[in-house]
Amino acid sequence: MSVVTSGATSQTAAFAPARARVLPSWNHGPARSAILDFVAAVTAEGSDDFVPPAERIAVFDNDGTLWCEQPLQVQVQFTLDRAATLARADPGLAERQPFKAFLDHDLEAIRALGKKGIFEFAFAIHAGMSVEGFQAIVRHWLARAVHPVLKRRYTDIVYDPQLELLAYLRAHDFRTYIVSGGGIDFMRAFAESVYGIPPEQVIGSSVRTRFEIVGERNQLTKLADLDSFDDRGAKVENIWLHIGRRPILAFGNSDGDEAMMRYTLAGTGRRLALLLHHDDGERETAYDRDFRLSPLNDALDHAGDLGFQVVSVRNDWARVFPGVPADTFSLSSARIPLSSAHVQGA
Amino acid sequence: MSVVTSGATSQTAAFAPARARVLPSWNHGPARSAILDFVAAVTAEGSDDFVPPAERIAVFDNDGTLWCEQPLQVQVQFTLDRAATLARADPGLAERQPFKAFLDHDLEAIRALGKKGIFEFAFAIHAGMSVEGFQAIVRHWLARAVHPVLKRRYTDIVYDPQLELLAYLRAHDFRTYIVSGGGIDFMRAFAESVYGIPPEQVIGSSVRTRFEIVGERNQLTKLADLDSFDDRGAKVENIWLHIGRRPILAFGNSDGDEAMMRYTLAGTGRRLALLLHHDDGERETAYDRDFRLSPLNDALDHAGDLGFQVVSVRNDWARVFPGVPADTFSLSSARIPLSSAHVQGA
Repeated sequence: MSVVTSGATSQTAAFAPARARVLPSWNHGPARSAILDFVAAVTAEGSDDFVPPAERIAVFDNDGTLWCEQPLQVQVQFTLDRAATLARADPGLAERQPFKAFLDHDLEAIRALGKKGIFEFAFAIHAGMSVEGFQAIVRHWLARAVHPVLKRRYTDIVYDPQLELLAYLRAHDFRTYIVSGGGIDFMRAFAESVYGIPPEQVIGSSVRTRFEIVGERNQLTKLADLDSFDDRGAKVENIWLHIGRRPILAFGNSDGDEAMMRYTLAGTGRRLALLLHHDDGERETAYDRDFRLSPLNDALDHAGDLGFQVVSVRNDWARVFPGVPADTFSLSSARIPLSSAHVQGA
Repeated sequence: MSVVTSGATSQTAAFAPARARVLPSWNHGPARSAILDFVAAVTAEGSDDFVPPAERIAVFDNDGTLWCEQPLQVQVQFTLDRAATLARADPGLAERQPFKAFLDHDLEAIRALGKKGIFEFAFAIHAGMSVEGFQAIVRHWLARAVHPVLKRRYTDIVYDPQLELLAYLRAHDFRTYIVSGGGIDFMRAFAESVYGIPPEQVIGSSVRTRFEIVGERNQLTKLADLDSFDDRGAKVENIWLHIGRRPILAFGNSDGDEAMMRYTLAGTGRRLALLLHHDDGERETAYDRDFRLSPLNDALDHAGDLGFQVVSVRNDWARVFPGVPADTFSLSSARIPLSSAHVQGA
């Protein structure tokens, strides 16, 4: 039980004040205080606000909440590449819509499909694969593809403040869930290694699957039929289906998250709903109403009435993702590059 | 750090050999050995069979595997009572089918609906309720209703050997899931208090729900539309949807469980699939092929080829549920009483 002291200790001590602070990538301000106050309250045994660990459920949207969704959601970037791969194997696909829009990187035509239409296409082109086979493709792609503007792997455009928050909540016996419009099998391919969120805590859009027995082998095969598009009210419905409890904390960034945030706040006892506002055009992209694929309108306009704590990227986050050049890309440009670069041998 | 000794110690010591044995309600034999060998193997760090705790997923059917499903599944007993309650409020229902069959306790007419048809009716009559409101009704009923033959509450017709097995697996860092054709909201109303299985580890049949905002209140409302009937291949599809991992242990008792048992065994590494055979007409009910609502045919006939470890109630279980009179009821009788008794003030 002796305390070990060494030269390294003095060096550490020099940084101690900064290192000892929780959520170091969060600036002092109302958002950080709301989080700290909330966690202190629900973990204070004997207090009226105390919540037992089993009920400390926190739900997070993924695209635009945990990682960057600009200029397109990462799964849409993946689909651009996958469409090209499939068209090489079957050139006839190139003349069909919406394949052609994806092959031509025709952003207007892609946007015209709407968020649900885009994701339905992304799911449908993987029909016939086993769920594990699909995840192997996702992992292979994530290990090699590089964001067209930020020039880093997609698993490195995760928001540092959010990684800190996830870890902070788990350290206080919260279970952290993803509840996202993204495909459940797509997200499970990386959620554990990137976010520390295991597959059973990932809720997303899904296609129907079919259990098939072929000789001694059996597998789950992905079908083209949409099972659930996990957006708006469906997020609440899927939270209930998967968890069977009402969360006590919800974090989103678009009108698609408003329902689960309202559902969270309407439970009895102390609750917290956080709304990320991308208002930093220098370190990331400033957007809200103008992001047609997943706009933020109503939830922002009524944040005060609804009891949402707005989190400003510009004001509340001390860093977003380190080392990215300022003013890297803007939604207003018609010339946003969409092609992922790829690294070899990863 | 002193060892406390007292008079109580001598008394305990007299029972020590029996108490120290794990799974005391399991007789020595191939089933118990298969379980102990399997758990020893997958928890032995450094061995080829070792499975990390996060992947120690065990899935259990509910009706007929964790609790008694004779003469009818408990949720069907519940539906008999609920149909009567609803018909008192709306007498016109009494003339409609299948309401009439439930009100008349017409077992043949009920059976003719088939398992899926019966459960669809059970779900549909609760459309329009909130999920929490429905669970409150289930809990109220379970606290009062008494099994027509066994004369005890339904939460007391749980198999003791299975409660021991669930606890034993959890003590070895397994996560225990229910995967059942029963309604997910019905089972979640008691699974935690009776089995120690929290709501997020209960997978079952489900209806669609709708998130509704009315003024400042919001709720999830149950709809009449079936979302998933969790039987046969659908059990595998729902295991993937909810867990996103292939289990390493599966326990079932009917052909409806065969798919998830095969799926479990087909994974890489060491696996175990257990099939409960109700072959004890003295302490419970002997049935397999003749239980039309959920028969056991194919899975028993091919158990050896498929690698299923059969568990015989008669031979492998030292007790079923204590204190039940012998030869209590038989499926062959046309006069099985179906009406639950009710206790007051529970």
